[in-house]
Amino acid sequence: MIEGIVPKALKEVIEEISQLPGYGEKSAQRFAGNLLTMPRGEALQLVDTLKQMLEKIHPCKECGLYTEEELCPVCKDESRDRQTICVVEESFDAFTIERTGKYKGLYHILGGRLSPLEGITAEDLNIDRLVERVESQPIKEVILATNPTVEGEATASYLYNLLADKGITISRIAYGLPFGAVLENADDFTIAKALEHKFKM
Amino acid sequence: MIEGIVPKALKEVIEEISQLPGYGEKSAQRFAGNLLTMPRGEALQLVDTLKQMLEKIHPCKECGLYTEEELCPVCKDESRDRQTICVVEESFDAFTIERTGKYKGLYHILGGRLSPLEGITAEDLNIDRLVERVESQPIKEVILATNPTVEGEATASYLYNLLADKGITISRIAYGLPFGAVLENADDFTIAKALEHKFKM
Repeated sequence: MIEGIVPKALKEVIEEISQLPGYGEKSAQRFAGNLLTMPRGEALQLVDTLKQMLEKIHPCKECGLYTEEELCPVCKDESRDRQTICVVEESFDAFTIERTGKYKGLYHILGGRLSPLEGITAEDLNIDRLVERVESQPIKEVILATNPTVEGEATASYLYNLLADKGITISRIAYGLPFGAVLENADDFTIAKALEHKFKM
Repeated sequence: MIEGIVPKALKEVIEEISQLPGYGEKSAQRFAGNLLTMPRGEALQLVDTLKQMLEKIHPCKECGLYTEEELCPVCKDESRDRQTICVVEESFDAFTIERTGKYKGLYHILGGRLSPLEGITAEDLNIDRLVERVESQPIKEVILATNPTVEGEATASYLYNLLADKGITISRIAYGLPFGAVLENADDFTIAKALEHKFKM
């Protein structure tokens, strides 16, 4: 879309947004178009909200969860189970787990997953701090809740090896059929895992 | 996603972005997540680029096309065919047509389409100015290139009636099979239109 009649300021927005993961030129264009179409005051407000977010939010210095304060609400909450750490790839994964209301322990945010293809190694992730936490705090269990993808699995294996001799329980979130799923539509790997991890009723 | 552990500044971003047409909570979350994950300097740069766009871009005072100047490059270009106006819903439609390199006339941007459901009436669109242009300039043809949707059709019909007595040629962009399409996959309406608008080879 680099034609003469597209205004430069719009081209720049489309170019920058289409660099974002999951965005292409079409979706970048739609985003820019939405901003330009809405009342200009509201659009400027949205941009300001984005800026505020970038200025206020940073990783919790203890666990890495996005927070506006030094310590996130989970790390500050003395009523939570402080012997269990759930390790996730991104803050959003922790938000999702938290939404279930079923988990009462602490979190640890890796900030990604090992990915040789993208050149992401253990040094790029928030792993040293995890080991430190396990060694310096009364942690009894680490639940590895990285995604069940090839890279998430590799990351979980890596962390398992790293923590295996720390005298703690290391668990992996369960694999199985998603609730409400139909067997017929599930992939073979999921079905195989669901059978392998069957439990007594 | 209105839980206690999601930072307020992030919640606000997600809430505002998920109001945009075509965005839901998931896609808003992905956008916010992308911004937070990328190097903070780059993210702030992107936000600044968005702000610049909103500050610089406005509709061309002649045709309504997004531009950074008073008159857009099309309206300023004396070498274009100034007797033909192609009417489109949005600036992006003009950018798309322009990309083909096949159109050398002027544009007119309506800024939307008639939509009783959304409460968008003729007064909300850049229609008066179109009539003015047709009446005051040596226009010979108006090509109605609103989208071939129910609302785009209604808008084209409305404009046709409005311009029918102005002594100009009024055309509608052709309907037919998209280039490279397979008949088997085309919908009945498109096939019917393609037959109706058949042309001699």
